Amino acid sequence: MGKGITSRSEDYSQWYNDLVVKADLAEHSAVRGCMVIKPYGYAIWERMQAILDKRFKDTGHSNAYFPLFIPKSFFSKEASHVEGFATECAVVTHYRLKNDGEGNIVVDETAKLEEELIVRPTSETIIWNTYKGWIESYRDLPILVNQWANVVRWEMRTRLFLRTAEFLWQEGHTAHATHDEAVEEAERMLEVYADFAEQTLAVPVIRGVKTENERFAGALETYCIEALMQDGKALQAGTSHFLGQNFAKAFDVKFTSKEGKLEHVWATSWGVSTRLMGALIMAHSDDQGLVLPPKLAPIQVVIVPIYKTEEEKANIDGFVQTLTNELQDMDISVKYDDRDTQRPGFKFAEWEMKGVPLRVAVGARDLQNGTVELARRDTQTKETVSQEGLAVTIENLLGIIQENIYHKALSFRSEHITEVNSYEEFKDVLESKGGFISCHWDGTVETEKRVKEETKATIRCIPLDAKEEAGVCIFTGKPSGKRVLFAKAY
Amino acid sequence: MGKGITSRSEDYSQWYNDLVVKADLAEHSAVRGCMVIKPYGYAIWERMQAILDKRFKDTGHSNAYFPLFIPKSFFSKEASHVEGFATECAVVTHYRLKNDGEGNIVVDETAKLEEELIVRPTSETIIWNTYKGWIESYRDLPILVNQWANVVRWEMRTRLFLRTAEFLWQEGHTAHATHDEAVEEAERMLEVYADFAEQTLAVPVIRGVKTENERFAGALETYCIEALMQDGKALQAGTSHFLGQNFAKAFDVKFTSKEGKLEHVWATSWGVSTRLMGALIMAHSDDQGLVLPPKLAPIQVVIVPIYKTEEEKANIDGFVQTLTNELQDMDISVKYDDRDTQRPGFKFAEWEMKGVPLRVAVGARDLQNGTVELARRDTQTKETVSQEGLAVTIENLLGIIQENIYHKALSFRSEHITEVNSYEEFKDVLESKGGFISCHWDGTVETEKRVKEETKATIRCIPLDAKEEAGVCIFTGKPSGKRVLFAKAY
Repeated sequence: MGKGITSRSEDYSQWYNDLVVKADLAEHSAVRGCMVIKPYGYAIWERMQAILDKRFKDTGHSNAYFPLFIPKSFFSKEASHVEGFATECAVVTHYRLKNDGEGNIVVDETAKLEEELIVRPTSETIIWNTYKGWIESYRDLPILVNQWANVVRWEMRTRLFLRTAEFLWQEGHTAHATHDEAVEEAERMLEVYADFAEQTLAVPVIRGVKTENERFAGALETYCIEALMQDGKALQAGTSHFLGQNFAKAFDVKFTSKEGKLEHVWATSWGVSTRLMGALIMAHSDDQGLVLPPKLAPIQVVIVPIYKTEEEKANIDGFVQTLTNELQDMDISVKYDDRDTQRPGFKFAEWEMKGVPLRVAVGARDLQNGTVELARRDTQTKETVSQEGLAVTIENLLGIIQENIYHKALSFRSEHITEVNSYEEFKDVLESKGGFISCHWDGTVETEKRVKEETKATIRCIPLDAKEEAGVCIFTGKPSGKRVLFAKAY
Repeated sequence: MGKGITSRSEDYSQWYNDLVVKADLAEHSAVRGCMVIKPYGYAIWERMQAILDKRFKDTGHSNAYFPLFIPKSFFSKEASHVEGFATECAVVTHYRLKNDGEGNIVVDETAKLEEELIVRPTSETIIWNTYKGWIESYRDLPILVNQWANVVRWEMRTRLFLRTAEFLWQEGHTAHATHDEAVEEAERMLEVYADFAEQTLAVPVIRGVKTENERFAGALETYCIEALMQDGKALQAGTSHFLGQNFAKAFDVKFTSKEGKLEHVWATSWGVSTRLMGALIMAHSDDQGLVLPPKLAPIQVVIVPIYKTEEEKANIDGFVQTLTNELQDMDISVKYDDRDTQRPGFKFAEWEMKGVPLRVAVGARDLQNGTVELARRDTQTKETVSQEGLAVTIENLLGIIQENIYHKALSFRSEHITEVNSYEEFKDVLESKGGFISCHWDGTVETEKRVKEETKATIRCIPLDAKEEAGVCIFTGKPSGKRVLFAKAY
């Protein structure tokens, strides 16, 4: 294993790529833009899935599954939606290969589809076409459904987890009888995401709404959570859309209200993806590798024995067995790394690279002294502690580590939200420090686009908690009622 | 809701279709051959996933994720594999749509892929291409990986769950240093499937191996579990393949052995799919709807209140709350159906259709008498029982129901395995009774094909526990050493 990753200060982007591969999280596949999620990376994703899935179910949602393919014509039914997705989609045109007689496998031109199928980039269209058959009356509402699935968007420039042609995600699609109920749902799910990001991923996020320019194709309002990475760039970590009646109108989905009137149904959709893996990595990790918050770590505690003789090893084994049982009873996941093919130093570096929150080293002298050595991944500190009450010590420490990782990220973010009141200042901060820049903006798409062209910064969101404050747009000098957050973003 | 499903005796096939839709399990989508798995159906699939996933992890496997797309050239590398799958696959040829200027969304012909991509029908090729980068030495082996994924096979005639163009499955792909270890793995996973089918699905299965003719494309040996449906047709419920070194050779995957020799890696793959939903339905259900074994039921107990006044309702609510808490503490899933929009009779029929194993009805008089009425879905019997120790009564009854469903299916199967010793007898049994027909066969592909042409029956498997027994092939009269099982199959 060895160190072998580029440092963040040297080349942040290369550091990320190195880490993803060296920590065994993912790798590029032979298919352009598609990744292989390796077992260790997938185990972290599974933890995310399990925790999110429980939160979805606790808020009344059920899972279902809809087709991978979407007929091309469905796409065209919601005008802004097709514009948003048509330029980057995988198109299935044929349904058979054949041997050309000379030993080559070729597409069978006689097996051409009448209508092309698009590999779903998102499922609003196929789902609303389905909901049409499920909804007649207000009694059929709300529909609160989520889907765990793969989607494909033909990105030209890809990066592992952050931007891949195929990625894994969940997409919630709900149907409601009223405008207000749908807005409430969109806001509820945003809060589920925000709480998950902060409590589980230990990543502080800003809750906000997108400007018209950055809104989801087909939404009336896009709520988002925005996180800050260590290089000062923002990352959109989840979105929840209030879709109004757009998809209900496009697919003619009406219901009879309590009052007996026929009305179009109100909709939301919301999703997070394997992109969260990128956010997790870039928010916490360091030059030694991955740093995982305990709540997400597939292995929370690794135990490494230090021994010279088989007898020493046998004694350590006995101690570890007892400790492991105690920890497992507390639902703490433990790995005993007693490989005899590697030295302790190699193991330390490997588990450090993989971000295991806590390492326990135990040697023959420890057994005599009734101690072990604990090494925290987050602070890179070691201490010798008593074996007395060790399981509880470990449990408490995992809680402290979770907190510490969050607060470290929170401090970093606090230091990287800068209020500016002029365009000069804006450009200066963007260049020198990065992070979120809080400033006034005149509310037009035009201004946002021009700032983006000139600086590459976009409006990440209008924070939900933004205060009313009279000011002037840093770019045009026109009046503005509240500050927005700009940043360069992933 | 109402009854409204065709009876099995009238039209078994229509009964199945009716049931799948009426029990809210799945429906056809707008995309040819692709299904929508509805929330209730998906909840059953999630139970299957959770239980299988735990069994895979308990046997040392980890999950990972590989690309949806497979380059066409990969397909061609294993000759029998491409033959098996090329004739029914979805081919991606373009990566962009565009507006043709007249408002039509069309394929952008300038965005044609250099090499076509196949939507995975199974992932051996892309995975073995990946494993090449993971394996150098015997220390890297075994690799024990599973993937939960969607796959696409362009079936022309589709049926919900049983045969769909897109389906959900898991596919295990393992790599080993030796022939024997790979065979052991293939056999171990077959036993995991068999045990899951019998213990969880309550479906008895026959463990066997496929004949050459029915083997997986690219396998040296295909192990299978075969179940019997109520119409006397067999259903292959899971397969586990010993792939030999075929894929390692096709993708040039070698390792350095302990002895320092460079050798090709040995492989297995194994999978079960949403087809299991079809097996589950057809093995147990009846003319009133779905019958679910308790271990798979998303709702194990439904409680229906019978009341005339609000006061009665309030008293029942109190009783139900206590019972529900007790049951939930025992990990029994309960639904209290206190909708005031439907009468009890309607609710009874609905939960019967959805296969809830146990129904508790409780009225004002029950509260006075200290009783409730329990109705078993499997036997369609009711009894009045005491409220004393009710939670334990229910827990025991769920165990009894699970057993009973299994034994009912087992008896049916025992009655439908018929030994025959002549081709006349074979055709007669096949026609009059169906089920598995145990007979001698000369071991040739030719004979198997001819019997299939004449009778539509195929060899489902050579049972693993088939005894050595001298006999003659029912078709050719040539000598045979053991009996095989023929049947018509799904």
